[in-house]
Amino acid sequence: MKDRISFSSDYTKGAHPLILQRLQETNFEQITGYGTDDYCKSAADKIKKNCNAKDADVFFLVGGTQTNQTVIDMLLEPYEGVVAAQTGHVAAHEAGAIEFSGHKVLTLPSFNEEPQFTDKEKPCYSDQVGKIKGADLKKLIDDFYSDDNHEHLVFPGAVYISHPTEYGTLYSKAELEEISGICREYKIPLFLDGARLGYGLMSKRTDVTIEDIARLVDVFYVGGTKVGALFGEAVVFTKGVPVKHPVPVIKQHGALLAKGWLLGLQFDTLFTDDLYMKISRNAIEMAELLRNKLIERGYQIYIDSPTNQQFVVMEDNRLKELSEHVVYGFWEKFDDTHTVVRFATDWATTKEDIDTLLQYL
Amino acid sequence: MKDRISFSSDYTKGAHPLILQRLQETNFEQITGYGTDDYCKSAADKIKKNCNAKDADVFFLVGGTQTNQTVIDMLLEPYEGVVAAQTGHVAAHEAGAIEFSGHKVLTLPSFNEEPQFTDKEKPCYSDQVGKIKGADLKKLIDDFYSDDNHEHLVFPGAVYISHPTEYGTLYSKAELEEISGICREYKIPLFLDGARLGYGLMSKRTDVTIEDIARLVDVFYVGGTKVGALFGEAVVFTKGVPVKHPVPVIKQHGALLAKGWLLGLQFDTLFTDDLYMKISRNAIEMAELLRNKLIERGYQIYIDSPTNQQFVVMEDNRLKELSEHVVYGFWEKFDDTHTVVRFATDWATTKEDIDTLLQYL
Amino acid sequence: MKDRISFSSDYTKGAHPLILQRLQETNFEQITGYGTDDYCKSAADKIKKNCNAKDADVFFLVGGTQTNQTVIDMLLEPYEGVVAAQTGHVAAHEAGAIEFSGHKVLTLPSFNEEPQFTDKEKPCYSDQVGKIKGADLKKLIDDFYSDDNHEHLVFPGAVYISHPTEYGTLYSKAELEEISGICREYKIPLFLDGARLGYGLMSKRTDVTIEDIARLVDVFYVGGTKVGALFGEAVVFTKGVPVKHPVPVIKQHGALLAKGWLLGLQFDTLFTDDLYMKISRNAIEMAELLRNKLIERGYQIYIDSPTNQQFVVMEDNRLKELSEHVVYGFWEKFDDTHTVVRFATDWATTKEDIDTLLQYL
Amino acid sequence: MKDRISFSSDYTKGAHPLILQRLQETNFEQITGYGTDDYCKSAADKIKKNCNAKDADVFFLVGGTQTNQTVIDMLLEPYEGVVAAQTGHVAAHEAGAIEFSGHKVLTLPSFNEEPQFTDKEKPCYSDQVGKIKGADLKKLIDDFYSDDNHEHLVFPGAVYISHPTEYGTLYSKAELEEISGICREYKIPLFLDGARLGYGLMSKRTDVTIEDIARLVDVFYVGGTKVGALFGEAVVFTKGVPVKHPVPVIKQHGALLAKGWLLGLQFDTLFTDDLYMKISRNAIEMAELLRNKLIERGYQIYIDSPTNQQFVVMEDNRLKELSEHVVYGFWEKFDDTHTVVRFATDWATTKEDIDTLLQYL
Repeated sequence: MKDRISFSSDYTKGAHPLILQRLQETNFEQITGYGTDDYCKSAADKIKKNCNAKDADVFFLVGGTQTNQTVIDMLLEPYEGVVAAQTGHVAAHEAGAIEFSGHKVLTLPSFNEEPQFTDKEKPCYSDQVGKIKGADLKKLIDDFYSDDNHEHLVFPGAVYISHPTEYGTLYSKAELEEISGICREYKIPLFLDGARLGYGLMSKRTDVTIEDIARLVDVFYVGGTKVGALFGEAVVFTKGVPVKHPVPVIKQHGALLAKGWLLGLQFDTLFTDDLYMKISRNAIEMAELLRNKLIERGYQIYIDSPTNQQFVVMEDNRLKELSEHVVYGFWEKFDDTHTVVRFATDWATTKEDIDTLLQYL
Repeated sequence: MKDRISFSSDYTKGAHPLILQRLQETNFEQITGYGTDDYCKSAADKIKKNCNAKDADVFFLVGGTQTNQTVIDMLLEPYEGVVAAQTGHVAAHEAGAIEFSGHKVLTLPSFNEEPQFTDKEKPCYSDQVGKIKGADLKKLIDDFYSDDNHEHLVFPGAVYISHPTEYGTLYSKAELEEISGICREYKIPLFLDGARLGYGLMSKRTDVTIEDIARLVDVFYVGGTKVGALFGEAVVFTKGVPVKHPVPVIKQHGALLAKGWLLGLQFDTLFTDDLYMKISRNAIEMAELLRNKLIERGYQIYIDSPTNQQFVVMEDNRLKELSEHVVYGFWEKFDDTHTVVRFATDWATTKEDIDTLLQYL
Repeated sequence: MKDRISFSSDYTKGAHPLILQRLQETNFEQITGYGTDDYCKSAADKIKKNCNAKDADVFFLVGGTQTNQTVIDMLLEPYEGVVAAQTGHVAAHEAGAIEFSGHKVLTLPSFNEEPQFTDKEKPCYSDQVGKIKGADLKKLIDDFYSDDNHEHLVFPGAVYISHPTEYGTLYSKAELEEISGICREYKIPLFLDGARLGYGLMSKRTDVTIEDIARLVDVFYVGGTKVGALFGEAVVFTKGVPVKHPVPVIKQHGALLAKGWLLGLQFDTLFTDDLYMKISRNAIEMAELLRNKLIERGYQIYIDSPTNQQFVVMEDNRLKELSEHVVYGFWEKFDDTHTVVRFATDWATTKEDIDTLLQYL
Repeated sequence: MKDRISFSSDYTKGAHPLILQRLQETNFEQITGYGTDDYCKSAADKIKKNCNAKDADVFFLVGGTQTNQTVIDMLLEPYEGVVAAQTGHVAAHEAGAIEFSGHKVLTLPSFNEEPQFTDKEKPCYSDQVGKIKGADLKKLIDDFYSDDNHEHLVFPGAVYISHPTEYGTLYSKAELEEISGICREYKIPLFLDGARLGYGLMSKRTDVTIEDIARLVDVFYVGGTKVGALFGEAVVFTKGVPVKHPVPVIKQHGALLAKGWLLGLQFDTLFTDDLYMKISRNAIEMAELLRNKLIERGYQIYIDSPTNQQFVVMEDNRLKELSEHVVYGFWEKFDDTHTVVRFATDWATTKEDIDTLLQYL
């Protein structure tokens, strides 16, 4: 496995070298536990400044499922569920972690467009897939409250969106504003899963800044695991954490890291000198390069993704050969002789990596 | 804080330098996720060999509470609880993480000896505190099954012990054999929390080896967070994992690390060339040195601990001064003018650290 | 409210007079608690005989949500979900009771037919709505197991169907056999919610007997609350209960009635002299009578229901008047000037009741 | 079994005849479901008037475990536990129902008095057993908040007491006032389990009225199952229910009865013409009669209970004979030749029943 180059996902490598360097430098410092240290404080301050949310509460968790589970549990009353796209990570790919903490995921259609299969010049799916629509959200909430028996149903208690989505697509600022407006009208908190946030912010095709996000949502997280950290996600409650005692809630979820400073130190590094954005931009540039070359060579693009994940239709008999040199992500069967493949770039992908890949395509 | 030397706990520092070195060396390798990689496999093999448990299943989790919660949930039927000392970590210090996953902790008395307060030559508490007794365990189980209404009670479904205990004390081999025998008689799995396992195995006053543990318990974990790793605990199900699909169970608990190899790599390093045992021995030697010096200087030892945690009675007016130079662990008030203080050594404590501490005592 | 006749649901009245009579007769007997009494035993024996399932375990719970929650929790491993029609009661109308006990509901399309709106002679929806299809079920299971990452998804651990469905429709024997066959192929238990079972068994348009059900499913329940009992549901695990200790599981769900004999006595009465079937047949006859009269008078039937629930399209300006004399069930808006209304007959509906209703239609 | 007279518990019989009569009278009324009916409203009003709590919210549940689980879950944040006597029903006898909904039971010593075994003229245990002490409660709360690491522990979030206790004993008004005062000082709600409330209120040795209880606690329940109802418990939140939407919470616990009026009707009957108190007084009078006769005959009283449960030491060789004619409750072994036996009277016990029992003693 190790000899092949991999584009299978964006969590196959360690961390940005500056992070390893700071781990080395601070290794024998003696630091207080559970996130009460100065590195966590410094990182939180930098993130709050970066997104212009001075009243925010920021804390650091280890991974994505854990973060989704813990945040959603903090947002909801026991009788409430979280609204998400049916393709959303919490709806489909968390092994029931949301239900494990007692909550239903109320799903909205997400992949409800007619794909283009005839025009090889155009992607099969547009850059809208994977997203929820404001109108669908509003209808779900209205239908709920207009049902006389709604106390026998699950209350919509929070809204979850991912940005980028699981399909690499992005909300526009107008769309985020619409969704945010609906949430505020009904006093339902809005949670944005930013496991790949950097790759969304640095897309060439976005008008959404981190400040917009902090202004429009109630809580989001800045993904570290997939964007330059060894591990870690920075959760930002933009108007403060909604539970009186977050520490025991986090600990109950098995999510309170003893050496919390390991998280603080990493995010402090990522939010110094704009490192997080710079390395995210690299992934985008490499993805754009790859995409352009693929189109040049006549490959059919499957989803019109503006971020670091690129989805391509490949002939099966070519794939066999490719897999001897490259690890790619299997996405789904396209037809009897073709397969949809995902190539993910990341913070550390080089131009040489892309060239290597291209030579096998 | 950073200028004072700290003996407050054994998780105040990073990792053994060899671990950082290997993180550096492997940083740009591309490795498969979720613990399916070769480092995890290698680490598991080394641990299985080390404890002579070739049929064991080994997996790696991030922290102690998470491990206790996930393992106990794997062991128990929904209507079962876990038996533990009332001073056991799962009974007292997990913010309700066990109950969060639906299970009761059934407590046994642990601190039920009369302390020695008259003889300043002897510790107030012996090296038995913090442990459960076989006879108490047997009585709890017998009482349960002899109750005609026991189907209205919580079934004892697993037994939890910590070794070393939260008081630094250790079970003897005979005691472990007795407890293990009772558990097997009633077909109740035995779980040993080894958050500080190395410090137990390297104690001068133990006859228990890691092979004994693997032979006598159904599941235990080798603590990394407190013994030389950045983070991580290696869970060993000595006769195989008792659930059909451990991956979704782990993921539901938010405990499945995307870059699982970070754990495998650390334990692979710790179990190469006996590193785990060597660095554990250092902590013991430093603790012994400290203890002897304390006794020499006439300090009253509070608990007769054979491991890396030492508990001492200190005059309050001396503590104020001490705290300007040293961070120690507050344990509890002793009397109106004295306090019990914990000093913890660790894998990286040096003779110079002890000397520095002693000069303020 | 009391002066208007009600067809709003089938749980608006008390119990069959024979049940009240037996409560009276046995009121001062002293009976052992928690379902250990002879009435429960007798009722269980009669039910087992009635459905020809001599190895079955039968127990009695109080209500439908409680039964669905408890049974599903008994069937599933923690990482498993229950497959149901998206219109199934457990998917839509239990206030999250299934998720409360930690499990996801995996939904299948159910209402996926094109309704007939043009031909007033025919119902808008056929007698197939509300049901799952074998092919859809098979696809869901196959898709799950063919996903390389299925350990990160929720396992399909049981299948839930209702018979009659929430729309009054019924599975044919061939359909039940197909679904049962798929479940057995994949070793997934099949659970049939029989809250209105009697009204399904006595339909003129069914070829399914209670023996068929006992043969084809792993667990079902005989609804009492809606079919002649004050309250109560008889759960039949056709091949024995799948948990070692059902009593504490039931008690944990708050579902263990102290005076369990109240349930046993009611079902013993209902399963003596075929009472359950006789009174169910009455509801069907009254529903058929109503339906025929409605068609005669040119009403548009909304769903072609063969059981005790009849769904009709009504003009809104007629409804206002109707509601002064009759309580009906609001189902949904049909168009700007029409509403879909549900009329439910029950075990105690008389021909006079139907005549009274008809005079206002 | 049916031929022997039973004193084994207070839930061996049906309901007061007036309740059966009203079930008969209302059997064919058509009543709205889920507790929205007029009988529930009327019963709630009568209870509120009876305990002089006009701002109270009253609702009706089916049984004791269900009530304890649902109420405690309403009172607690996820990271909070409920404080109870270690002998309290929620601590010891609910099959883990409290933990099933995610909460720890924090126990206080309850049986911590030295029993009298020498003086046969006096009961072995006084009328204080089974109760918590204000001082112990205060210490538990103070210890919790004075622990620097209390965010890693389980917060005391509610206090549970039973009155009468599981040992038949009662709190005095002064004791209730002390406990209530501590709870209010720390803003911790106080919950009183009144499964046998009538038998406490009608004791000859109490100074506590139902108005006192409503004034001093935040929530209590009036037990029906053991005091004249077929089943049912009336929950009184004296200052209003603490959750925004109680209906879905109740339904999630499987505790929302479809025919809710069955509960309302029963409590409406019990709280008409003081019936609840009258029939409770009967149980007390019969218990006093029995107790006096037992003392006269030289039996050793085990617990000095002022309510309907009487605990007596019996010779084992006498018990064998007794059990041919009388069903009694086995409590525990006293010594090698004696057993502690419980005799429970109830709302329907007659003087003839007592005479029958006495002739076998």
